[in-house]
Amino acid sequence: MKNNNKNKQFAVIGLGRFGTSVATTLFKLGYDVLAIDVNEEQVQKISETVTHVVQADTTDENSLKALGIRNYDVVIVAVGSDIQANVLTTLLLKELGIKYIVAKAINELHGKMLAKIGADRVVYPERDMGLRVAHSLVSTNVLEYIELSPDLSVAEITAPKILVGHSLAETNLRVKYELNVVAIKRNEVLLVPPPSDEKIKAGDILILVGQTKGIQKLEELE
Amino acid sequence: MKNNNKNKQFAVIGLGRFGTSVATTLFKLGYDVLAIDVNEEQVQKISETVTHVVQADTTDENSLKALGIRNYDVVIVAVGSDIQANVLTTLLLKELGIKYIVAKAINELHGKMLAKIGADRVVYPERDMGLRVAHSLVSTNVLEYIELSPDLSVAEITAPKILVGHSLAETNLRVKYELNVVAIKRNEVLLVPPPSDEKIKAGDILILVGQTKGIQKLEELE
Ligand SMILES: Nc1ncnc2c1ncn2[C@@H]1O[C@H](COP(=O)(O)OP(=O)(O)OP(=O)(O)O)[C@@H](O)[C@H]1O
Ligand SMILES: Nc1ncnc2c1ncn2[C@@H]1O[C@H](COP(=O)(O)OP(=O)(O)OP(=O)(O)O)[C@@H](O)[C@H]1O
Ligand SMILES: [Ca+2]
Ligand SMILES: [Ca+2]
Ligand SMILES: [Ca+2]
Ligand SMILES: [Ca+2]
Repeated sequence: MKNNNKNKQFAVIGLGRFGTSVATTLFKLGYDVLAIDVNEEQVQKISETVTHVVQADTTDENSLKALGIRNYDVVIVAVGSDIQANVLTTLLLKELGIKYIVAKAINELHGKMLAKIGADRVVYPERDMGLRVAHSLVSTNVLEYIELSPDLSVAEITAPKILVGHSLAETNLRVKYELNVVAIKRNEVLLVPPPSDEKIKAGDILILVGQTKGIQKLEELE
Repeated sequence: MKNNNKNKQFAVIGLGRFGTSVATTLFKLGYDVLAIDVNEEQVQKISETVTHVVQADTTDENSLKALGIRNYDVVIVAVGSDIQANVLTTLLLKELGIKYIVAKAINELHGKMLAKIGADRVVYPERDMGLRVAHSLVSTNVLEYIELSPDLSVAEITAPKILVGHSLAETNLRVKYELNVVAIKRNEVLLVPPPSDEKIKAGDILILVGQTKGIQKLEELE
């Protein structure tokens, strides 16, 4: 089945672990995916799980043009350790007029440079997963964690035991932790917004929005 | 300020991007963190942002013992490309009786091996972020996406253009998509709960909770 949205075409440059995961996931989701790597070995590994695969050095403008990269709506630059190749590829894609470029950065400085060049989105896969894993390790409660900004986060946490049996109003999380319980998931039912006199039950999952610090404090409750 | 929970001690082996992020995040959260790498350069980079840092080859049993690694509650093996070093380190940690071992795997086979050896948790940072990024790319609006269950999700999306200028009440997302806007992030300010007569502005980020299908339909709006 084809639908309009699925006409969107993606190209992924750099088939390390991250690039390979992006490319194969997009392909599984039903999209056309061109995968590119300078290394023949990487190219062979992925050949069955994307639409097209090409061996090319994307720092070479002529190779890039020859690939018809201009026809792709979104290009993901997943070249990692070689910052120079990553930056130069991004620059060339920008010059070629690619409308949406996602680039992988290995540190903040690199990320800033990519943004300046004109990458539409900069991603830090290892740093972000490191954050997530660290947060999940300090608490058995936190299931998911999203930073909205350095100060604000969304978290999905299993209700800490000391809250069980108390109503949301009683827990007063808004004042104590600057956190808002925006929904409660109980079995497969979602209470949203949750009534303030609703008593928290064991096993409830709370969806919280608010101060990152408040979430950290809540993580420490048993 | 010390509290009971923060007595938990962590050691991170392998200070690539992922290991560094885990170590510095745990330290920022207030925990004692020992960071270890065989490479002197990595060791120097991280020295200001963790509790202790040591240069050592963790595939050497005597070095590991000399580090007093047995005193650590959780050890994260973030050694990457060198599968042999990663696996051998995990084995030695297991033999030394470490209670909770988290190990980074670079592919499924490696992950299975780590689980068999006795790693308590196996993580695939690049694969997991690749999945997330791919999902966020098939829609230009979705910034973050969490599945609460196959039917229910939380999403962070940039307000689709056709909603801009309309109040939340007018958009009627609750009826049309079975979705609840639980918060609006506007610049660094969080409106929670958002007033129902609040007009959506360009660039607003909506935090939505509700039916996965509804979110998917909303993703397709421009
Ligand atoms: N100039 C280039 N043109 C095309 N591909 C390139 C170029 N330079 C590097 N690559 C490819 O990019 C891929 C990813 O690079 P690398 O392995 O250094 O990144 P990484 O950040 O360690 O990746 P990951 O963590 O996702 O495994 C490699 O397969 C490499 O061959
Ligand atoms: N035997 C060892 N003992 C201690 N540290 C080691 C050992 N072998 C490798 N390391 C260190 O592990 C770190 C991470 O390894 P590597 O860079 O290969 O992984 P990676 O998966 O590419 O990391 P990332 O994607 O997180 O940057 C390196 O800094 C390396 O020096
Ligand atoms: Ca690599
Ligand atoms: Ca990596
Ligand atoms: Ca590395
Ligand atoms: Ca165990």
